[in-house]
Amino acid sequence: MTTSARPIDHSGLEVLTIADCLYHLGTARVGRVAFVSDGHPVILPVNHGMDGDEVVFRTNIGSKLSAAQQELPVAFEVDGIDADRRAGWSVLVRGTARTVEDPDEVAALYQLGIWPWADTVRRGHWVRILTHEITGRKIVHDSVA
Amino acid sequence: MTTSARPIDHSGLEVLTIADCLYHLGTARVGRVAFVSDGHPVILPVNHGMDGDEVVFRTNIGSKLSAAQQELPVAFEVDGIDADRRAGWSVLVRGTARTVEDPDEVAALYQLGIWPWADTVRRGHWVRILTHEITGRKIVHDSVA
Repeated sequence: MTTSARPIDHSGLEVLTIADCLYHLGTARVGRVAFVSDGHPVILPVNHGMDGDEVVFRTNIGSKLSAAQQELPVAFEVDGIDADRRAGWSVLVRGTARTVEDPDEVAALYQLGIWPWADTVRRGHWVRILTHEITGRKIVHDSVA
Repeated sequence: MTTSARPIDHSGLEVLTIADCLYHLGTARVGRVAFVSDGHPVILPVNHGMDGDEVVFRTNIGSKLSAAQQELPVAFEVDGIDADRRAGWSVLVRGTARTVEDPDEVAALYQLGIWPWADTVRRGHWVRILTHEITGRKIVHDSVA
């Protein structure tokens, strides 16, 4: 590992590049979506995929689908944690949720091979997050070169 | 593992008991807090602790502290993922963030031994989430007894 001069934010966290963020978004198996439901934020895990730089996931009838139908602003997060080294990274996507209704678009999304782990109830609706911003941070320790 | 008759929600997920939720909240090393910042939800990871049934964490000046100073509604989430078994659980706390200013209360919180992994910038402010609701879900597969 070379001594990089990556930017550090006001909290002492290393700022990830967009390429790093997209790599993490593309390889994480689970992410978390947040939105406001009944006036209060919620955070719910989903098995997601990436369609270019946009997060997509499947859902059934419920608050996530409702958020997408209302085209609400949402956040989506993936992270990786290394408890032994007290280290980790996180990537945050801010965007707008919307349902995917176009049959051709739905058919293309099924080609991404996203199979929700929770499979006892069919998750037949697709949600796409229209990306506004992607940011990422990584914990750095002074003692690590 | 006995065949339990735990309740299942509309999404086919097993509903965790409050005791299970508090166990997971108390043992997870990292959680994620969500709130609305500049009109848009964000999700940010934190090293948290539990003071009874309330989530507490340390932060520095920034959006999390600002949310607490405004006593915003927040969500807090912990989860556990088993990619090999396509399984996992998550716990969601909905509540209101507030800063902890009382010196005796701050002193008591330091006794909890919460040391943020991100330690290059001092996180000298404490935030408490006043709990409104705690819920948890677990993925169940038909094939697992």
